[in-house]
Amino acid sequence: MAPQDRFVSENTFHIRYAETDSMGITHHSNYIVFFEEARSHYSRMRGADYADFERSGYWLTVVEVHARYIVPTRYAQRISACCWVEELKSRSMMFGYEIIDADTRQVCVTGYSKHVCIDHSGRVAHIPAGWISVMKTGLPDAKDGD
Amino acid sequence: MAPQDRFVSENTFHIRYAETDSMGITHHSNYIVFFEEARSHYSRMRGADYADFERSGYWLTVVEVHARYIVPTRYAQRISACCWVEELKSRSMMFGYEIIDADTRQVCVTGYSKHVCIDHSGRVAHIPAGWISVMKTGLPDAKDGD
Amino acid sequence: MAPQDRFVSENTFHIRYAETDSMGITHHSNYIVFFEEARSHYSRMRGADYADFERSGYWLTVVEVHARYIVPTRYAQRISACCWVEELKSRSMMFGYEIIDADTRQVCVTGYSKHVCIDHSGRVAHIPAGWISVMKTGLPDAKDGD
Amino acid sequence: MAPQDRFVSENTFHIRYAETDSMGITHHSNYIVFFEEARSHYSRMRGADYADFERSGYWLTVVEVHARYIVPTRYAQRISACCWVEELKSRSMMFGYEIIDADTRQVCVTGYSKHVCIDHSGRVAHIPAGWISVMKTGLPDAKDGD
Repeated sequence: MAPQDRFVSENTFHIRYAETDSMGITHHSNYIVFFEEARSHYSRMRGADYADFERSGYWLTVVEVHARYIVPTRYAQRISACCWVEELKSRSMMFGYEIIDADTRQVCVTGYSKHVCIDHSGRVAHIPAGWISVMKTGLPDAKDGD
Repeated sequence: MAPQDRFVSENTFHIRYAETDSMGITHHSNYIVFFEEARSHYSRMRGADYADFERSGYWLTVVEVHARYIVPTRYAQRISACCWVEELKSRSMMFGYEIIDADTRQVCVTGYSKHVCIDHSGRVAHIPAGWISVMKTGLPDAKDGD
Repeated sequence: MAPQDRFVSENTFHIRYAETDSMGITHHSNYIVFFEEARSHYSRMRGADYADFERSGYWLTVVEVHARYIVPTRYAQRISACCWVEELKSRSMMFGYEIIDADTRQVCVTGYSKHVCIDHSGRVAHIPAGWISVMKTGLPDAKDGD
Repeated sequence: MAPQDRFVSENTFHIRYAETDSMGITHHSNYIVFFEEARSHYSRMRGADYADFERSGYWLTVVEVHARYIVPTRYAQRISACCWVEELKSRSMMFGYEIIDADTRQVCVTGYSKHVCIDHSGRVAHIPAGWISVMKTGLPDAKDGD
């Protein structure tokens, strides 16, 4: 499901005990946090740092999130959070995700999140050119945003 | 957006400090937890208890979740988590949610979650009759499930 | 264990499903969040609002926290988070906590937290007079801080 | 502060955005989770797996936790969670922790946790011999437990 035509980052870690619930599996809300950490990792892998992006006066605020739960994961399981840029526009962008078992590569959870660039007063803003150009390095040539 | 033709539960509480993030707002992953607590509250309001449902040998496992973020909320804000049954089938069900400011009634976040009934061995199962009949009390007469 | 000679706030709520873990009980880290929400509630009960305290330019940063786990709690259990001021000094204060079953009053977890007042540049500061006087209303007459 | 006479595990990771709060720093409750993940990592480094320990019918339940907050950490900061066995007895054990900046080695948070071995019916039990012998490999020769 992860696209073949663009950069896909992959961040591997263990499920923490605190992330499990009474069903004995990873609580579904934690995957939303894994998605977020996956996009932090994506940025690092492209040579950018979301913390710098914030310090420059902007936020990529989350406006929508979606997750589909296919196979549960459990305490101590090694999982990989895969992340790619689904869409890049002048004021917004969308990331895609796949949470997989790091050993078997079985897909456990898929999802996406949509983001709008705002400045620190809360107004919608153009994504700064530097960030756009970094994000573009992860996209196929034909994909120029709007 | 909350439907007028069926029961909508409403659970009011304060945003906790731990639920905020560096943007100074409630972190988006917490609304997934608020959705869950909203359906716990929905069940209680219909006279049922999800803990009993579990003890009877079943789980309503989450297979999909979606959230749309409209207006941020902040530490100490009083919010209400509204919840209703969107759809009730023999083996699955769907809840709808609205997180609103408890005082102004402004809609801050909307969402839904889809659930499948499984037994404790993980197999898809019919939702037990008792739970179906309780959930039906929150639905309009015409809505019979499948 | 909660002191008899001073104001003790009590905030009652249900354990959320997300707060449980694979042991089937409330994960121990969540009580640290309950302690925090208990002190937010304590302030509200004394007519003050920690959010206002922050907006006035200060933080009561946490410098130490301790919890003792006596009896586990579970999903949907109604618990009360009891909170009192253990000590009030010019630049620091200490809260005490008891997490009890709301129905049986059984003590489940006890703890304390120590706080230092800092301004938003991070420097240690005197706790503002207004906050001191509010906090003192919860203390026995003889207790004047330093 | 981490002892020189025994094995100290070190687990390095980035602070997640969701772990920050309105103060712009890592929320203090998350270090309790870092402590836990540090002891999971400790076990792995000694060739044991806490998940196996659980499957063998036991839990090392947390009976006490303490944290001292010295220097705040922030989003995206690389930190190392250091962990060692402070004490090993027949039915209980104690871990010590240090959360440090992974680059500067500055100590940010210190703490400890105390654990009692229970079986799955909740009764206090002897820590199984296999687990004791694994844990002993991290201790100085002179230290034999009780």
